[in-house]
Amino acid sequence: MPRGASSRAMSVPLGLHNCRVRVTILGFGLIGGSVARALRQRDTEATEPWRIAAWSRTPAPVEQAVRDGVVDVSAETLEAALDGADLVLLAAPPLASLDLLDRIGGPLRNAVGDATVTDAVSVKAEVLAQANRLRLHFVGGHPMAGRELSGYTAALPDLYAGRPWVTVPGTEARPIDVERVQRLIAGCGAVEVSTTAEAHDAAVAAISHMPLVVSAALVEAVAGRPGEPPRLDWPLAQKLAATGWASMTRLARGEPGMGAGIAVTNAAAIAEQLREMRTVLDEWIAELEAADGPDANRLRDHFAAARLRLEQE
Amino acid sequence: MPRGASSRAMSVPLGLHNCRVRVTILGFGLIGGSVARALRQRDTEATEPWRIAAWSRTPAPVEQAVRDGVVDVSAETLEAALDGADLVLLAAPPLASLDLLDRIGGPLRNAVGDATVTDAVSVKAEVLAQANRLRLHFVGGHPMAGRELSGYTAALPDLYAGRPWVTVPGTEARPIDVERVQRLIAGCGAVEVSTTAEAHDAAVAAISHMPLVVSAALVEAVAGRPGEPPRLDWPLAQKLAATGWASMTRLARGEPGMGAGIAVTNAAAIAEQLREMRTVLDEWIAELEAADGPDANRLRDHFAAARLRLEQE
Repeated sequence: MPRGASSRAMSVPLGLHNCRVRVTILGFGLIGGSVARALRQRDTEATEPWRIAAWSRTPAPVEQAVRDGVVDVSAETLEAALDGADLVLLAAPPLASLDLLDRIGGPLRNAVGDATVTDAVSVKAEVLAQANRLRLHFVGGHPMAGRELSGYTAALPDLYAGRPWVTVPGTEARPIDVERVQRLIAGCGAVEVSTTAEAHDAAVAAISHMPLVVSAALVEAVAGRPGEPPRLDWPLAQKLAATGWASMTRLARGEPGMGAGIAVTNAAAIAEQLREMRTVLDEWIAELEAADGPDANRLRDHFAAARLRLEQE
Repeated sequence: MPRGASSRAMSVPLGLHNCRVRVTILGFGLIGGSVARALRQRDTEATEPWRIAAWSRTPAPVEQAVRDGVVDVSAETLEAALDGADLVLLAAPPLASLDLLDRIGGPLRNAVGDATVTDAVSVKAEVLAQANRLRLHFVGGHPMAGRELSGYTAALPDLYAGRPWVTVPGTEARPIDVERVQRLIAGCGAVEVSTTAEAHDAAVAAISHMPLVVSAALVEAVAGRPGEPPRLDWPLAQKLAATGWASMTRLARGEPGMGAGIAVTNAAAIAEQLREMRTVLDEWIAELEAADGPDANRLRDHFAAARLRLEQE
């Protein structure tokens, strides 16, 4: 056996390598579409291909994916989608995925049967608490990549290639559940990072959710608050805005419903990070308003230290 | 005369259109190099080409520009650089440009003679105050474009094409000074925006300088303050960081000395914008920690209003 093949096989759980997994994707936008495209693209390299079923609130993207050969089965109902699934991936927006979880653990409990359930929601504590309460065979997931575009048409087979994919096993997760989710992650070319819901939520609050709020807050501070007329100095400021402004407000240009869903579901961790941010801004204000004028060397040390943190890996 | 030629001529001050301008660029990095490249590229379209002299603290980039045919004269001393100049552009970093201004208005006063002096520093109040005190024929300038790369090797002839170029005339500015600077701006393909030093400094504090501080503050809040060990949760957070984090910390990856120079010279306006930012962050914390839980609709309104501000021009 060539060395490449051997080392490739090592990265996939042995018990499952030759066993076809029937995956059902609920919600079929950027995330669900990219997962389906990734699995299908890697199918040619696998001993057994995936069987991919999908359902979404509006059927058009799934039907398109069937025509594209990316999905095998377009399910008309949730019951039909769950039928025979080994692995169910919740890939709808945050609040919709929580709602799907409730239905799977409640009215659709019989349809989901013994299947593994996973998700792609960007917070984990609330999702895990709910899945545990419903006693589902759940392994929480969060693939760490995105695009500003949304929908199946924006889906990319390599969106998650080489990216971290967080996993948090629930209280009812069996070894087979962990293995199925690991196989899904490997099938997307992603790298599993196993952690706790609390550590995950604090980390993404820090590097994703709080920065999202800061981006929107920056616009409010400079252009004006919701419901108010624009600030008088905004027209000149907007005219002079260059790439720095574009970079700092890129996140604020995202879909507002998505932002609100993230903010609501990880509110406490985001608020904690915002407090830290406020404290740091107070320190900067104090430096800039120092009694004997701002000290260029001290300010330079701040900028240099921040750059160093970013460069150290 | 064809209509195109007529409307082109209209955009250049009539008195100068057929008159060669001898420009001297002091400081020859990204800004000076891009101006020289722009003027030289447009020379072929002009009746009279520019005569471009340049000086920098280290002579290598100017000598390279002479070999490239971008600059006509590499001056060994500031006196030689100023000799015969109609227009002097200060294109060094902020604090170095202020220092050059002092020397031009003091020991080099005879060498600069009757020439027009302009600059490219990203704050205007302090520069204007100093130029006025020195009674120079000064028109302050700020071309609104940049790159993360620096130095002559990063200079682009189109860096300022179509971009705003702020002008603020000093107390001793004559019509000929304003015309020469307008011709420089037209020669770079930029669009003049005439305003006051105070309005300019408030605007750039809002859309450029305060966001720069926020970008560095974000790193300090999440990774740890200068001189402290990294925060315990930083390694996981850094591992999970994706494009949102990259976008929000792009400015913090810039040259620390440049950031410090900007922060020192526009400290009061930046501090005022940071206070506004702090107030907005307090409002977000209050929303996220509302007694009866965060309200998804209210948060959605915040994100939607911010996006709308960015989309309205």
